[in-house]
Amino acid sequence: MPSTAPARTRSSDLVRAARCEPVSRTPVWFMRQAGRSLPEYRALREGTSMLEACTRPELVTEITLQPVRRHGVDAAIFFSDIVVPVAAVGLEIEIVAGVGPVVARPIRSRADLERVPELTSGHVPYVTEAVRLLVAELGDTPLIGFAGAPFTLASYLVEGGPSKNHVRTKALMHGDPALWHALCDRLAQVSGAFLRVQAQAGARVVQLFDSWVGALSRADYTRFVQPHSAQALAAVAGLDVPRIHFGVGTGELLADMAAAGAEVVGVDYRVSLTDARERIGPGHAVQGNLDPALLFAPWEVLRAAVVEVVEEGRRAPGHIFNLGHGVLPDVDPDVLTRITDLVHEVSTR
Amino acid sequence: MPSTAPARTRSSDLVRAARCEPVSRTPVWFMRQAGRSLPEYRALREGTSMLEACTRPELVTEITLQPVRRHGVDAAIFFSDIVVPVAAVGLEIEIVAGVGPVVARPIRSRADLERVPELTSGHVPYVTEAVRLLVAELGDTPLIGFAGAPFTLASYLVEGGPSKNHVRTKALMHGDPALWHALCDRLAQVSGAFLRVQAQAGARVVQLFDSWVGALSRADYTRFVQPHSAQALAAVAGLDVPRIHFGVGTGELLADMAAAGAEVVGVDYRVSLTDARERIGPGHAVQGNLDPALLFAPWEVLRAAVVEVVEEGRRAPGHIFNLGHGVLPDVDPDVLTRITDLVHEVSTR
Repeated sequence: MPSTAPARTRSSDLVRAARCEPVSRTPVWFMRQAGRSLPEYRALREGTSMLEACTRPELVTEITLQPVRRHGVDAAIFFSDIVVPVAAVGLEIEIVAGVGPVVARPIRSRADLERVPELTSGHVPYVTEAVRLLVAELGDTPLIGFAGAPFTLASYLVEGGPSKNHVRTKALMHGDPALWHALCDRLAQVSGAFLRVQAQAGARVVQLFDSWVGALSRADYTRFVQPHSAQALAAVAGLDVPRIHFGVGTGELLADMAAAGAEVVGVDYRVSLTDARERIGPGHAVQGNLDPALLFAPWEVLRAAVVEVVEEGRRAPGHIFNLGHGVLPDVDPDVLTRITDLVHEVSTR
Repeated sequence: MPSTAPARTRSSDLVRAARCEPVSRTPVWFMRQAGRSLPEYRALREGTSMLEACTRPELVTEITLQPVRRHGVDAAIFFSDIVVPVAAVGLEIEIVAGVGPVVARPIRSRADLERVPELTSGHVPYVTEAVRLLVAELGDTPLIGFAGAPFTLASYLVEGGPSKNHVRTKALMHGDPALWHALCDRLAQVSGAFLRVQAQAGARVVQLFDSWVGALSRADYTRFVQPHSAQALAAVAGLDVPRIHFGVGTGELLADMAAAGAEVVGVDYRVSLTDARERIGPGHAVQGNLDPALLFAPWEVLRAAVVEVVEEGRRAPGHIFNLGHGVLPDVDPDVLTRITDLVHEVSTR
């Protein structure tokens, strides 16, 4: 069955900006726009675990649609979690409130790799179904598919949970590079296939999210991570979906992340869009980069910061407005709506 | 009473490297070398709270000396905590195990500023005493004085404890810049005076540590933080003590941190020493920058990484070998001794 996404989403401002083509106004969406900042989300999630929620197509659809309806953003982001694909292939993992993903038996030997088989669309029928439901509902608004990148997945699997210093992960990559590459090769397949399922079902853009990659030096990134991110991104090559690649604290890695095969590089708030463009070089779009903490500042301050990001973004083709990191849970959602309107207003002037 | 530090510590490799002068070999010390990685430290601290320990000169002296004896490093770092000076002036604060500093009543209004009076040497007689004891014991090894920088102190005081996103801190700086600057002006006095007490008692170098400043954009740093760091560093100008300034994740801020008045800029492992020197410009020494996670990798891998940092450091005058962040508590202390020997060996070749 072919994608049910209206063909015209291909010429949406989001897709055009991702391709560095002219836009009618700067497209805007927010990382983690679907989530705890919305009371309607908290009500819907009540009593359902995160991973359970991610396997229920109607729930995923409703959660993904909530911020689009409320804020009028230019894209929906598929509601999922970074560890959904590894859970889908059978790895024992749960998301513990206040902690994050916890892996019952971490991956630390070659034998452990058997617990992470390749992912096929048969592992995630609920994703295909949710994407189809979504694109039917979304009309002209494009859907962004989502997956965690191999390094971040590997860190969770090797450490057994969230980690501040990624000590075991780095010890493995340096101490047993062959095992490291075998693990990341597997995770790149899982991650890439997860993106591909979404793209084939109708997602018009994909985002590969590498939460923790900013913990690496550039030398470690290019040697141990970039080839695997490239493999994951290559899984959707030829499907006509621009690829966004983002990580936090990645000022030193922007050019290498672009070179991994992304049309759009997400920029955190520590680096200006101008500096980011200079580092990345021509031919790529940028996404970002308002400091999410500014959403707690008075409106006049926030307003000026939003206008600055929009104006800076417009100095060259290819800018998708976003935060420089995910929406914080305590934020007043009305502020996100105001920012959306302001971005549109300023960029059509 | 004048400083009892032997005058010859002024021509130690540490001080010479800090001034970009020729050295007999690359000086090495480790941030957090005095601390939980050492069994003799854990034994000594048993039953004594962190803040209590910091007020006992004999204990501070012994803890500070432990890593110097064990590893043969080229500097002692004064054992203290970032919040010691604010506790010394009377702010109610405690260090909670597994959490960090917790401020009973956070600072959020102009009236709250009264709870952070100016610091004089009379507030910290135990610091003066500990430094004097130390320099008498240390002989030719120079002592590095230590203080937390105004921004990091402000973040603890405004948030009420450690924070991931510094939301209240950023909301305050943007929402009430006058109060923010008043608070940081006070904290710069406290921080600078704390460094000055140590320098006057015999510390030969000082390090101003801005743990969290990497959470700021460059624009926010230059407007809201740099003037106050400069004020703190200026408090020891004229005392003939080179000043090291370090923060984590500060690749974007290195030049501005140097411009705040530091002779030496600490570099974390995400940026190469070569790139750091290029960003900072000539006339400054650099300190760093081995990834602390590599201390858990096999020796051959670690060895190569150490040699690389030493060789890169030697390409220009002015390099102090260190980690790109503090020693992790689980590290095998023998590894630190091996690294110290290796740095010395490689740099005298």
